[in-house]
Amino acid sequence: MIPTGFRRVTPADVAAFRAICGDANVLTDQSDLEIYGADETEDLCFPPEVALRPANAGEVQTILRYCGEHRIPVTPRGAGTGLSGGALPVSGGVSLSLARLNRILEVDTDNLVVVTQPGVITQVLQETVEAEGLYYPPDPASRGSCFIGGNLAECAGGPRALKYGVTKDYVLGVEAVLSNGDLIRWGGKLLKNVTGYNLAQLLVGSEGTLAVITEITLKLIPLPKERICLVAPFDDGQAAARALTKIFTARLTPSAAEYLEGAAVRCAEAKFGKSFPQSDADAHLLLELDGNDRSLLDKDAETVAEICFAEGARDVLLADDRTKMADLWEMRRGIGEAVKSVSVYKEEDTVVPRARLPELVGVVRELCRKHKLDAITYGHAGDGNLHVNILKRELTDAEWNDRLPGAIAELFQRVVAMGGALSGEHGIGWVQKRYMPIALGPNELALMRRVKHAFDPLGILNPGKIFPDVE
Amino acid sequence: MIPTGFRRVTPADVAAFRAICGDANVLTDQSDLEIYGADETEDLCFPPEVALRPANAGEVQTILRYCGEHRIPVTPRGAGTGLSGGALPVSGGVSLSLARLNRILEVDTDNLVVVTQPGVITQVLQETVEAEGLYYPPDPASRGSCFIGGNLAECAGGPRALKYGVTKDYVLGVEAVLSNGDLIRWGGKLLKNVTGYNLAQLLVGSEGTLAVITEITLKLIPLPKERICLVAPFDDGQAAARALTKIFTARLTPSAAEYLEGAAVRCAEAKFGKSFPQSDADAHLLLELDGNDRSLLDKDAETVAEICFAEGARDVLLADDRTKMADLWEMRRGIGEAVKSVSVYKEEDTVVPRARLPELVGVVRELCRKHKLDAITYGHAGDGNLHVNILKRELTDAEWNDRLPGAIAELFQRVVAMGGALSGEHGIGWVQKRYMPIALGPNELALMRRVKHAFDPLGILNPGKIFPDVE
Repeated sequence: MIPTGFRRVTPADVAAFRAICGDANVLTDQSDLEIYGADETEDLCFPPEVALRPANAGEVQTILRYCGEHRIPVTPRGAGTGLSGGALPVSGGVSLSLARLNRILEVDTDNLVVVTQPGVITQVLQETVEAEGLYYPPDPASRGSCFIGGNLAECAGGPRALKYGVTKDYVLGVEAVLSNGDLIRWGGKLLKNVTGYNLAQLLVGSEGTLAVITEITLKLIPLPKERICLVAPFDDGQAAARALTKIFTARLTPSAAEYLEGAAVRCAEAKFGKSFPQSDADAHLLLELDGNDRSLLDKDAETVAEICFAEGARDVLLADDRTKMADLWEMRRGIGEAVKSVSVYKEEDTVVPRARLPELVGVVRELCRKHKLDAITYGHAGDGNLHVNILKRELTDAEWNDRLPGAIAELFQRVVAMGGALSGEHGIGWVQKRYMPIALGPNELALMRRVKHAFDPLGILNPGKIFPDVE
Repeated sequence: MIPTGFRRVTPADVAAFRAICGDANVLTDQSDLEIYGADETEDLCFPPEVALRPANAGEVQTILRYCGEHRIPVTPRGAGTGLSGGALPVSGGVSLSLARLNRILEVDTDNLVVVTQPGVITQVLQETVEAEGLYYPPDPASRGSCFIGGNLAECAGGPRALKYGVTKDYVLGVEAVLSNGDLIRWGGKLLKNVTGYNLAQLLVGSEGTLAVITEITLKLIPLPKERICLVAPFDDGQAAARALTKIFTARLTPSAAEYLEGAAVRCAEAKFGKSFPQSDADAHLLLELDGNDRSLLDKDAETVAEICFAEGARDVLLADDRTKMADLWEMRRGIGEAVKSVSVYKEEDTVVPRARLPELVGVVRELCRKHKLDAITYGHAGDGNLHVNILKRELTDAEWNDRLPGAIAELFQRVVAMGGALSGEHGIGWVQKRYMPIALGPNELALMRRVKHAFDPLGILNPGKIFPDVE
């Protein structure tokens, strides 16, 4: 697994790392390394040779400079909640945890920005700014445990993206360390800035392959005062997806529009011991509207309900108190974990233009029949982002390994033919890289490699990720 | 002016270009070349050796491949409305006009996106989507003549950025040609996409130095149904700037918040023969609120008016019919041209964190006194973006040339010390590049150069721009 040119970590390296970070922050016990060898991607584990927990950007610089000089691969790590294997140290070497860079440096209520270190939990950041009447909308399901730095690395999305955008839409500035140890600063508390190339944006979604982010400046917006949720069960999943398109063509912009297959909802019911209204339905839409005026929201909710009924919704249920809404969202956030606890699985993070979603729902069902596989789907339908969890269930290992690669390749070919892409918000990382040539041609991949080389000529930063082994 | 390694255009080259674009689209007359040698930056003119008007991406590819092979510099050109000299062919060679790639390819009302060629006039694009109830907010003052492709190249902003963001916030996908002739496509009709590095975003604001954009996919939003404008004259410009900060801390987000010095308003009155209310004031705020509910807007307008009065506004005038609002915005858009027609000038596109704007207004006045210069300021105060027009007026050439560079350098040093940057929306181009080391350190500039090399290893694309000659 060690690419040519990298070398193994020696006791002398470990001693050097201890001098940089302090003994307590250099982990070499096998039990620790197994923790740092995994994230939340399937059951994969690639233990690093050493895990480091630097305290600040200066220590990150010293570590990278050392690793560059000694050709030791470095895999940056946030909270380890990634779903594409971005934090897996697949080439060994160093796992570089940003967990100790965990301070919110400033909530600037005059300029509506927050300056933070990368190791802050996203929900902590959100609740901190909400206490000031401000809002940081990107809201991945893992927000209770993921780090904001990992959100940048993957360009995390979540249910609010259809109205409020994704992580990249909030990044105004970054401080980061290059693989040679150089510290760079880009942007700041500026809504407009065309002073040089927008390299801050390039780092967003680069999955730790270009630089290690050590400080982040994020745009905030005023927190909407009112919020209501609607749940619409449908007897036909494609009809649910069609209803969603009609909501948008009616020029309404919900703050969330989630598509949940009945099977996904039933997994969550079983796991959490809670019930979801009409969970026997084929699929549900979970819709949220927000704004500053309740009567406007009520009016919009009526229009949404009319559209859902016209497309065949069984019912449209309103949740407008905090407890009911919190319950709904807790169920929704737990669905991924619930579905994945059912069976060995493989998750795909498909994304298509929103209006093609009904077609995508149909394609998944068609391919499952064709390849004799079972899949449960759910996701952020409002932006065409459907998580497809293919389940092994009772299949033998041979059947599973035989059927899966062809089914996934065909799924991605169909997605790309619809104008879609391989991943909406989980990233490519380790587990999707082999499919990259389906989405990007040789010109695009060659250009990406040249950009990678411009940032990390030694190739020590998160090697083995994003780029396909064979093009 | 020809950097080492470039060669002059020969008659054989011209013949080759004629074979590619057709005779009518290869311009060599001196009068034509003078048009292609200028944009709207001061009175600068650097005629190209030949101007080409390709019809499609294929012709752009052939031209770039040819120019790469023959080391002929290529300066892409939109409508020539730039204010930093981005379209000036400072090294001679080819001016590559995108004017004939001028079709809107699709307004997709289901997915709320528009797919367009780069040579479409921004206002035409806006009006086309508005006819479908959709909205493309970025709104540079030159929108009646600038091209959407140039808006991408410069990451154009305009007055709506404080609520709706700038060009980059709407770019979902691009097709572009690299300097070796390779065509690349990135992104698409996808609100979320983390399939590889976000190179589409990197092209936005890269001022034609990385690739030539040949197709663009832009996000649209529903067009707000209601809009009102307020004009608040102040006897103290800094008080006007302070009022603006208070509007934001009251958690209101106007759709525009322009700061206009009295002197700027009076230039526009003189030029256009129209009157502006209370134009003898030291400064005005021109505020716009939009949304879907008129009564909510009226309530917000009341709060805005109260804040303005509390900060010392002389009056707050409401414009709520289309004609009055159109008149106000016409005056506002004409201010740049009006101020610049007064005298030889030098414009700086300063940007600071919004809450530092009162300080910036003071700094400009202080530096003018110190350096014995006269400046008129106006701009997008809601995002801290102040256009500073330094006027030569009665100064001798010697006085002007003697005082100006030091004053500008000091202005930028003060701006950067406030957390600001050299340009909010005009770009660096030719006229600001010497100041880049004030904003970016050697690490950042070296990284930018490596990124430039990754895209354009021959350095033929828009040479002489952005990067300082000496670092």
